[in-house]
Amino acid sequence: MASSMEQRLAQHGVTLPAPGAPAGNYVPFVVVGNLVFMAGQVARADGKMAFVGKVGRDLSIEEGQKAARLCALNLLAQLKVACDGDLDRVARCVRLGGFVNCGPDFLEQPKVVNGASDLMVEALGEQGKHARTAVGVGSLPLDSAVEVEAVFQLR
Amino acid sequence: MASSMEQRLAQHGVTLPAPGAPAGNYVPFVVVGNLVFMAGQVARADGKMAFVGKVGRDLSIEEGQKAARLCALNLLAQLKVACDGDLDRVARCVRLGGFVNCGPDFLEQPKVVNGASDLMVEALGEQGKHARTAVGVGSLPLDSAVEVEAVFQLR
Amino acid sequence: MASSMEQRLAQHGVTLPAPGAPAGNYVPFVVVGNLVFMAGQVARADGKMAFVGKVGRDLSIEEGQKAARLCALNLLAQLKVACDGDLDRVARCVRLGGFVNCGPDFLEQPKVVNGASDLMVEALGEQGKHARTAVGVGSLPLDSAVEVEAVFQLR
Repeated sequence: MASSMEQRLAQHGVTLPAPGAPAGNYVPFVVVGNLVFMAGQVARADGKMAFVGKVGRDLSIEEGQKAARLCALNLLAQLKVACDGDLDRVARCVRLGGFVNCGPDFLEQPKVVNGASDLMVEALGEQGKHARTAVGVGSLPLDSAVEVEAVFQLR
Repeated sequence: MASSMEQRLAQHGVTLPAPGAPAGNYVPFVVVGNLVFMAGQVARADGKMAFVGKVGRDLSIEEGQKAARLCALNLLAQLKVACDGDLDRVARCVRLGGFVNCGPDFLEQPKVVNGASDLMVEALGEQGKHARTAVGVGSLPLDSAVEVEAVFQLR
Repeated sequence: MASSMEQRLAQHGVTLPAPGAPAGNYVPFVVVGNLVFMAGQVARADGKMAFVGKVGRDLSIEEGQKAARLCALNLLAQLKVACDGDLDRVARCVRLGGFVNCGPDFLEQPKVVNGASDLMVEALGEQGKHARTAVGVGSLPLDSAVEVEAVFQLR
């Protein structure tokens, strides 16, 4: 049976992607006690980058939001592995760190990273509300438009 | 009665501001066990950005330090809420992450972020000493000069 | 007797450097329960910056990797202090955050930060595998080519 989180996401028309492979010599998550430290996820779908370039120059804010949402979906796909397939073990989303690939004059990082934050709330309801840091950076791996890292709490 | 932290701050002529509202779909902090994960705070006072622009170009290092100090004050204002108003429950400042809005040739991030670190030591004494990461980023939300995130430990 | 970690590193021809002093008003690490939050380390050796400038412009990817490796060595030097000299108390490397000093068109952050990740695996084997975030930033303290922060778990 699908977890509550996946049922909730299905109501928003969302299914979790397959978890992807890390881009370097690291692992997608480490569990310590009831905390899950998640590696940064980029805007990759089906094995290739889906949103490439700088938000505000190559991509609109709306596209940046979709990129952030995709990063969040990739985080949840990895989180499912961290939970041995049972997302009902997730107690809450503790923290997101959002890095927006953009030029020095772009100031709408919060709007962009809301694409990831909104998905967490869709997936987890009240327990999806998290602390967050959003910053603009000059460049990201493989020119991803956004990168999002996370900490989750398990039951 | 004011907490020891607030008495200490008062000796430095500092009063905590009112906690502000998040700039996106997130919450100012999440408590997990005895850890408080705090969202990034920007250099906002009385509901508007007080230090805008790039340190080293639009703002001096001293202004950048004041911006970082303001971010730290905003963190403590939120921390007070996390402690249900009783800052004596704070055991220590564990970690600060400081992001300085600056151009590619600015190298004085440590001096700037000291504005936040110094305030933590003023507020908490020895327990205010924290691990820290300071980096320069190309842009920040609402053009804030500095953004600072934190982890605190509660008793 | 040297710890298992130091014996392992010796097999790779590596000895830990002496721990350096922080560049600001902070401490190199804070221990909370079994977690160690480490301050960001830069590419400094023997008291001076060893890899200065922007990777992809002033430095090659290979030099960037060496800079990241040096940051990782500096993290382990501080971690030894956190363990009161006994690195056998380290259970695992939980998380690395890698910041690469580079221009807006540089996209090889994962390769660069692998310099730090590879060292963790050399030092700790399977327990060296960590969650990781790698981003490109416009500038770093003292023009270090790379900065790496970390979270470790103790036994």
